[in-house]
Amino acid sequence: MDRSCLSIILAAGEGTRMKSSLPKVLHKIAGLPLVCHVVRQVQLIGKSDIAVVVGRGADDVSSAVKEFSKTANIYLQKERLGTAHAVLSARQMLGENYDDVLIVFGDTPLIEAKSLERARDELAHGADIVVMGFITENPSGYGRLIEKDGKLQAIVEEKDATTEQKKIKFCNGGVMALNGKLALSLLEQIKNENAKKEYYLTDIVKIGVSRELEVKAISIPFENVIGVNTRVELSEAEALWQKRRARELMLSGVTMLRPETVYFSYDTAIEGDVVIEPNVFFGLNVKVETGVVIHGFSHLEGAIVKAQSEIGPYARLRPGAILENSSKVGNFCEIKNARIGEGAKVNHLTYIGDAVVGGHTNIGAGTITCNYDGFNKWKTIIGENAFIGSNSALVAPVEIGDGAYVASGSVITDQVPENSVAFGRARQINKEGRANALRDRFSALKNKKE
Amino acid sequence: MDRSCLSIILAAGEGTRMKSSLPKVLHKIAGLPLVCHVVRQVQLIGKSDIAVVVGRGADDVSSAVKEFSKTANIYLQKERLGTAHAVLSARQMLGENYDDVLIVFGDTPLIEAKSLERARDELAHGADIVVMGFITENPSGYGRLIEKDGKLQAIVEEKDATTEQKKIKFCNGGVMALNGKLALSLLEQIKNENAKKEYYLTDIVKIGVSRELEVKAISIPFENVIGVNTRVELSEAEALWQKRRARELMLSGVTMLRPETVYFSYDTAIEGDVVIEPNVFFGLNVKVETGVVIHGFSHLEGAIVKAQSEIGPYARLRPGAILENSSKVGNFCEIKNARIGEGAKVNHLTYIGDAVVGGHTNIGAGTITCNYDGFNKWKTIIGENAFIGSNSALVAPVEIGDGAYVASGSVITDQVPENSVAFGRARQINKEGRANALRDRFSALKNKKE
Amino acid sequence: MDRSCLSIILAAGEGTRMKSSLPKVLHKIAGLPLVCHVVRQVQLIGKSDIAVVVGRGADDVSSAVKEFSKTANIYLQKERLGTAHAVLSARQMLGENYDDVLIVFGDTPLIEAKSLERARDELAHGADIVVMGFITENPSGYGRLIEKDGKLQAIVEEKDATTEQKKIKFCNGGVMALNGKLALSLLEQIKNENAKKEYYLTDIVKIGVSRELEVKAISIPFENVIGVNTRVELSEAEALWQKRRARELMLSGVTMLRPETVYFSYDTAIEGDVVIEPNVFFGLNVKVETGVVIHGFSHLEGAIVKAQSEIGPYARLRPGAILENSSKVGNFCEIKNARIGEGAKVNHLTYIGDAVVGGHTNIGAGTITCNYDGFNKWKTIIGENAFIGSNSALVAPVEIGDGAYVASGSVITDQVPENSVAFGRARQINKEGRANALRDRFSALKNKKE
Repeated sequence: MDRSCLSIILAAGEGTRMKSSLPKVLHKIAGLPLVCHVVRQVQLIGKSDIAVVVGRGADDVSSAVKEFSKTANIYLQKERLGTAHAVLSARQMLGENYDDVLIVFGDTPLIEAKSLERARDELAHGADIVVMGFITENPSGYGRLIEKDGKLQAIVEEKDATTEQKKIKFCNGGVMALNGKLALSLLEQIKNENAKKEYYLTDIVKIGVSRELEVKAISIPFENVIGVNTRVELSEAEALWQKRRARELMLSGVTMLRPETVYFSYDTAIEGDVVIEPNVFFGLNVKVETGVVIHGFSHLEGAIVKAQSEIGPYARLRPGAILENSSKVGNFCEIKNARIGEGAKVNHLTYIGDAVVGGHTNIGAGTITCNYDGFNKWKTIIGENAFIGSNSALVAPVEIGDGAYVASGSVITDQVPENSVAFGRARQINKEGRANALRDRFSALKNKKE
Repeated sequence: MDRSCLSIILAAGEGTRMKSSLPKVLHKIAGLPLVCHVVRQVQLIGKSDIAVVVGRGADDVSSAVKEFSKTANIYLQKERLGTAHAVLSARQMLGENYDDVLIVFGDTPLIEAKSLERARDELAHGADIVVMGFITENPSGYGRLIEKDGKLQAIVEEKDATTEQKKIKFCNGGVMALNGKLALSLLEQIKNENAKKEYYLTDIVKIGVSRELEVKAISIPFENVIGVNTRVELSEAEALWQKRRARELMLSGVTMLRPETVYFSYDTAIEGDVVIEPNVFFGLNVKVETGVVIHGFSHLEGAIVKAQSEIGPYARLRPGAILENSSKVGNFCEIKNARIGEGAKVNHLTYIGDAVVGGHTNIGAGTITCNYDGFNKWKTIIGENAFIGSNSALVAPVEIGDGAYVASGSVITDQVPENSVAFGRARQINKEGRANALRDRFSALKNKKE
Repeated sequence: MDRSCLSIILAAGEGTRMKSSLPKVLHKIAGLPLVCHVVRQVQLIGKSDIAVVVGRGADDVSSAVKEFSKTANIYLQKERLGTAHAVLSARQMLGENYDDVLIVFGDTPLIEAKSLERARDELAHGADIVVMGFITENPSGYGRLIEKDGKLQAIVEEKDATTEQKKIKFCNGGVMALNGKLALSLLEQIKNENAKKEYYLTDIVKIGVSRELEVKAISIPFENVIGVNTRVELSEAEALWQKRRARELMLSGVTMLRPETVYFSYDTAIEGDVVIEPNVFFGLNVKVETGVVIHGFSHLEGAIVKAQSEIGPYARLRPGAILENSSKVGNFCEIKNARIGEGAKVNHLTYIGDAVVGGHTNIGAGTITCNYDGFNKWKTIIGENAFIGSNSALVAPVEIGDGAYVASGSVITDQVPENSVAFGRARQINKEGRANALRDRFSALKNKKE
């Protein structure tokens, strides 16, 4: 769309029912603050300037928004005098004669760009005010949208509605689109002549009708305007978001055995023909390539899993984990800031941190890279086609060459040259027939203790 | 409320459809037997004496009830002759002229104290018999509550109901409140003149009406009277209980990303501003203080997690685990009967059992406290600011002093004085160029085996 | 039932909406390809010959079917000319005068044998054509079943339906049963005189009516005819299957705290009085005997867990794991191709692969069987009443005798005779007062790096 657009996101609310020191719009779903979900959808509608109106926790909200979108403009609502007053906090940008002005809410994280586009289409076709509503079988409590001949006549609050109006199932969703040339003058006409002495954005409909402007209502999915006011509602919005995302991924070719037990972050990227078993958690910044199988109880964050790899069950990939093609990370393994080479295997009870594991190397069960000395994190470099025997400790900094072979149960503190065999373990001593004496002693101790 | 009260809990049922050797009311939800859930709600209504009527598995049910509430009185129903007969098993207490008598069921674990309070309010305002009902869109199969002028006229069973009566959506929930001065005489009037020759509690309504007493019905949420008769119904009641509890916690300020994947026990205590990732299991007797983050796939039981600590993913806390403020227990770690000091870290693949870990001590990956000799459990005491290198085995009983440093891969069998460095590992030997020979040998063996 | 039966399963579809290189009917639920679920239900109706019509991915589909049922006959539909044409691909068998012919679909995995039996009952009572339909509150889009005097008159597609017909809630489920003596002649009468020039199976109703045959419709549960066309629908069918299976198991005496978080494979066998905590995954080929407790986050595949054993949380049993009575496998333990003896314990952070653990033996925390040398898998044999100290590495091939005692932290490379004590660890050396110097050095290194 070639029309210029300003999106105003209202994010100044108190959110006291969240019972939280965190401002409401900074609570997260899918790892992203609510307000940033809204910014993200606005970004998707193509070139729109963004104004975010902040209030409670202004600094924190500003930082979060700016981190997500450098170009967003922040406006402070100093007093809380109603939604129209909040919008006018961005008065400066409203005066810039955009074609379209969108007004959305920082606490409705499920708004979709395509709904906003539809409202802008109405503007493009001559509407001056577009109210986004939704249809519900249980309209009780919502403001009803009263239409006549395809035009919006009024928004009537529940308490003011006639019996006939109460039967209307088309309700106000709050979100609006305005003709940008008229937006400022319309907003400035709103008065605070009401019980709470607040400036209500919904009054704009009345004003538009009285000015004989083109006022319309469009219906968008209810989900789009669900607001978050408590942590219960937060979890409900999260569930809807997750369901939506799982659906998208499945339709694009991802198999999920139990989608409702998988958690995605907003930026999780998964290619087609990936299989995800039940109970998998994707933290921020994960990319999974085609053909990968993720077994249950896996937990990924900041990781790249390349094509045809297999992870889990119980694989934990932490930030900086990179699994090259056809590699394998198995149960009770933790990979942090480490590259696992093509076809390499890290299958059981292992911690690989701050390391490089070469292609086709096999890391035995119970291997630990000892990367931390209490002060510094050191690197472990393992070559290609190496074999690390089970239950070994690799004390970093240390290098193990291509084709090297570390005996099981070794503590490796020095370099292992390529194709060398390294031992770092004590020799076994058997004391034959002694176990009974030992047991007698331990048993006696037990009796003594009791 | 100053009125005296007797709560009679009927817990004598057979429960054959549970297909279990365990008496029905001892099956658990949220870690607590069904009958104890009912006792717990009765306890919440303030001073009420409690009588529990037992039958099948009388000894086991009695023990479970007495363990949960020392003051509960147990009565045995020797023959199973109907609900009224069951209530009269507690005849002795019924004769003591309580103001209020409540009759509840041991297999309806979702009954709420506030519903019982509402029934008692009716008694306090002059009612003699209060039947607790519920409203449902699908009343088919339930006894209907027939009211006239705000009074209950009759309970009509499905099979006896007229077409008109079948349309009534107000149904009998079974639970009752009686004027304590009249309860015994009313109950004794009930006859067994019916096909099964049983004494039915519901007949009390007919008797009350014929005696021109004040008989009322009140509506309580359906959930309150859901009975458990099969393990399917048990799981459904569990799901409702869990949902209710998750909701309470979220409204009190706990964040849950996927509440439906978290399991709480009845006594799980969680303070505000705790974050719980998906897939967390709280067994009995867990307390979590403010600011704690619990990552996914964690399993807690009998543990205290103090403020600002962080656990998981894949943390297992077993009974006796105490995590002091700002401590950290990471992936694939098991803590049993051990105190983890303030700011201490136990981050990877570690077992800490029967131990004390001092403040700000770092336990390396793969550390194992060897606490068991086959007969006795021994203690491991680690001081403050100590550093245990990765993949170490600490063979208890053993003490490691403040500021001590254990080298990676060590087996520690003796005391490590404070500020000492301890080694317990073999020196590394490299056999250069030998790996190929080894591989040839293993490869030849493979060929031979095949 | 003594009547002979032919079941024709149509499994030739393209399934492009699956976005998959795998043929649609080979996508799995509960670990079994869709088409095999259908084969399995057909097998349950007693002696029925089976014909599977394949098309896309014919070889792969044939292999999968033959692997599941050796006696199934495979027919290739070479061109895709409609459902009736597909059925006629099995013309050869249709000519063999079966009493009953069933026509079912390879992509409706929730069909139940009992529904098919009901259709055959109708045939046995004189019907010639039986159409299996379902009743739905939202019939829009489905073909409506038009009945008169208990006989089916026609199937009317949505687009051809009158306003009155559109109100009918009885819809065509696709599945049919035919009088085997007439089946071939009926099918051959179907013409392709329609827009797509396809031979539609549903036309058989019109033909039957015109031939004055006995045409009937029966109502079966909607679930039975749910087709899978996308991976979203696949996950929905999976959820229904899992719910059905969980329900069956609970009614048979299995306790599940959160059934919706447990995943079963089609062949998972669980006896009564087993308790399953939340978040458990059963892969293929698992058998669990009575009295077993499975704690959360456990993952089982190809395993047998015998009576009264206890596993998890976080237990992973891989193919070939056999847990004898009253044994215990605890957290972060992996068992592969190994028998754990009666009463033996493998409780923490352990890998037991290619091994035998004798009865009443205790395996300490962090024990690793080093079973792989890079080429061969070797066996570890541990006797009865042995004790393996924590953090030990058992380098296979190795035998540890009855009553032997391995000291904690040992690397065991040679045989340990019975009742011997084996050590394989270095002696501890303390360097007193040296920790500060070490810390100073590491701290200096840190400063240098920064």
